Amino acid sequence: MATINDNYLKLKAGYLFPEIGRRVKAFAEANPTAKIIRLGIGDVTEPLPSSIRDAMHKAVDEMGVRETFRGYGPEQGYDFLREAIAKNDFQSRGADVAADEIFVSDGSKCDCGNILDIFGTGNTIAVTDPVYPVYVDTNVMAGHTGPANETGEYGKLVYLRATAENNFVPELPTQKVDLIYLCYPNNPTGTVATKETLAKWVKYAKDNGSIIFFDAAYEAYITDPNVPHSIYEIPGARDVAIEFRSFSKLAGFTGVRCAFTVVPKSLKGKTASGEEVDLYRLWTRRHTTKFNGVSYITQRGAEAVYSAEGKQQVKQIVEFYLENAKLIREGLTALGLKVFGGVNAPYVWIKTPGNLTSWQFFDELLSTANVVGTPGSGFGAAGEGYFRISAFNSRENVNEALRRIKATVKV
Amino acid sequence: MATINDNYLKLKAGYLFPEIGRRVKAFAEANPTAKIIRLGIGDVTEPLPSSIRDAMHKAVDEMGVRETFRGYGPEQGYDFLREAIAKNDFQSRGADVAADEIFVSDGSKCDCGNILDIFGTGNTIAVTDPVYPVYVDTNVMAGHTGPANETGEYGKLVYLRATAENNFVPELPTQKVDLIYLCYPNNPTGTVATKETLAKWVKYAKDNGSIIFFDAAYEAYITDPNVPHSIYEIPGARDVAIEFRSFSKLAGFTGVRCAFTVVPKSLKGKTASGEEVDLYRLWTRRHTTKFNGVSYITQRGAEAVYSAEGKQQVKQIVEFYLENAKLIREGLTALGLKVFGGVNAPYVWIKTPGNLTSWQFFDELLSTANVVGTPGSGFGAAGEGYFRISAFNSRENVNEALRRIKATVKV
Repeated sequence: MATINDNYLKLKAGYLFPEIGRRVKAFAEANPTAKIIRLGIGDVTEPLPSSIRDAMHKAVDEMGVRETFRGYGPEQGYDFLREAIAKNDFQSRGADVAADEIFVSDGSKCDCGNILDIFGTGNTIAVTDPVYPVYVDTNVMAGHTGPANETGEYGKLVYLRATAENNFVPELPTQKVDLIYLCYPNNPTGTVATKETLAKWVKYAKDNGSIIFFDAAYEAYITDPNVPHSIYEIPGARDVAIEFRSFSKLAGFTGVRCAFTVVPKSLKGKTASGEEVDLYRLWTRRHTTKFNGVSYITQRGAEAVYSAEGKQQVKQIVEFYLENAKLIREGLTALGLKVFGGVNAPYVWIKTPGNLTSWQFFDELLSTANVVGTPGSGFGAAGEGYFRISAFNSRENVNEALRRIKATVKV
Repeated sequence: MATINDNYLKLKAGYLFPEIGRRVKAFAEANPTAKIIRLGIGDVTEPLPSSIRDAMHKAVDEMGVRETFRGYGPEQGYDFLREAIAKNDFQSRGADVAADEIFVSDGSKCDCGNILDIFGTGNTIAVTDPVYPVYVDTNVMAGHTGPANETGEYGKLVYLRATAENNFVPELPTQKVDLIYLCYPNNPTGTVATKETLAKWVKYAKDNGSIIFFDAAYEAYITDPNVPHSIYEIPGARDVAIEFRSFSKLAGFTGVRCAFTVVPKSLKGKTASGEEVDLYRLWTRRHTTKFNGVSYITQRGAEAVYSAEGKQQVKQIVEFYLENAKLIREGLTALGLKVFGGVNAPYVWIKTPGNLTSWQFFDELLSTANVVGTPGSGFGAAGEGYFRISAFNSRENVNEALRRIKATVKV
């Protein structure tokens, strides 16, 4: 009989969001009249702006005419989109990224997992804690970890703690690590990395020959002009970092699917025998062999994000979610809760009141206020005692959720 | 320094289609007035039918209204599409496939590579020769092969020859293999597998505990009522086969991106210690962790393929390409060439005249008739001396290509 990849059996069964779904479903069935407000999963709620829809309509029409029909496109994305990205997201900020270093894809989640394909199996891997679970799970699947212990931590991974005590800025690893996942603005804590913090990481990576996987999926939410949007704003980052970006939270594309990954041509890895190899060459081979490009229609929609009208419309939606985050932050602070994030990110990270565990607070919030959030412990051991509230919802729901929380939660 | 996946260095640099591109470009630059007709790459040319475009326009509009906006969908695809597929593609043919065994994705090329994630590294793998290069390359990348020899064959892979001598139906392996790639209607030979042939494979797989990867990307081109469209039309196939399907060649989706993979719940693999594990469970974990679903707009377009109008429109396009294939087959046969395929497939596979190698014939056809095809040797050693011509083009171009070939090619 064919053998399976045994590493899959190391994965813990209860992935965070299915468990939330199970508890919400059970509550809803027992309380059919309860009007549940979901501030749990990080999914956008506001409609796609007209400039993006117009571009997609036009592209659909083009597909109906032989002369403008498009079959297979370049796997890495059409030049019109790669050039718009390079210019607007990088060059305009003084970050040295060329259009042909941008690989358009159908999602950052996919890219964060797929990037491991081009690396060896013996690398030491560091993640922050709390952490976006996909970074960890894809390493488990790829056989880069040992089994999980009773707190859910996997052997061989290096966990870098981010808690209120260190202002959610984890210390540099005390040992040498080869691959490092950083996510800023951070999911789940909603905190950011300053230029100084990122410069320290770039120096660490240079000194240790490490590669940083920089996930900037939430960069559009940065309001502080001193916070870098891209790691390539830091000198030397081209030699040590791969950056993941997405249109999901920037332009409401969670259901449309478009993202991109930047792999600078200056990045190197080494073979088992110690020779240097361009990672750009390997990722190009991976992307062209195991992926077939993003829908032409979607790429035209993504291009419209960079039009004058698109920029304005997208900015309005981001500001709308940020105003939600501000209301949540201020509302919960006034209630006496300790609140982090939510200024440069669509997530507010709160310390649970009265030493409740994350899941105890989840259950209380669900049963008393009928509000769904995300238990911090679902993102890692250091998230225990914390709770994530997402700003992705209507103003009405955010205000109603706050009203109910104020009426029911004891701090 | 971080180590790379050394297996990538085993890949041969000259992938088939880039090499074709290089030669065509060089010829075009040297002969700027030549009107080159491309019958090489298997890419559709006819516009997307109105029923599909209408569905996509409607979906774009829905995304513009808060109440009908869709964010993250189910990673496996929306029920409306999975149910339409199960009913129309399988149940209507008596094949026992449930909607929740269908995993909607952005491409069969991706799925054919990604499926390896859930299998162990010690399996013996068989491919036909000639073969779609992605099956081989993704196994090389995953470390399932040794290095390539001078004919381009990789160590450890089992190659099953398909030539005119065995009517392009390879013999069953004489040894035990664990994973087997079959593609019918076949790319590149354009030949098909009868029920009897597939039943033999299913029995072999049952007897040997093997899993068959059945690539049916071209099933829409089957005209012979006795040729099965799905391997699940064969009794027992649910216990041994994973099937890959695509909207690319069925409905002109090469630039739209939608496909699906069927993983029956009855499929088993085993762990290193010999315990049986459901492959369905593993693939569900893979698909939900490393993929984030296909665009809602695309899925509505794919759903429209199954509407009464969509079926009719899609059928017309397939018939159009098949008529091209017939013209090519008949034209080249009349010229005295030995011609295979092209009856139940959009590809015509010809024996090169005068014992020319595949690349010699490629160069002759390009330089004398200004027609681009695909050298058979690019698909494997057994493809040497053969040549693939694609039926994906306008009628005008097909007729003009045939006129030129008749005027220039010496048989």
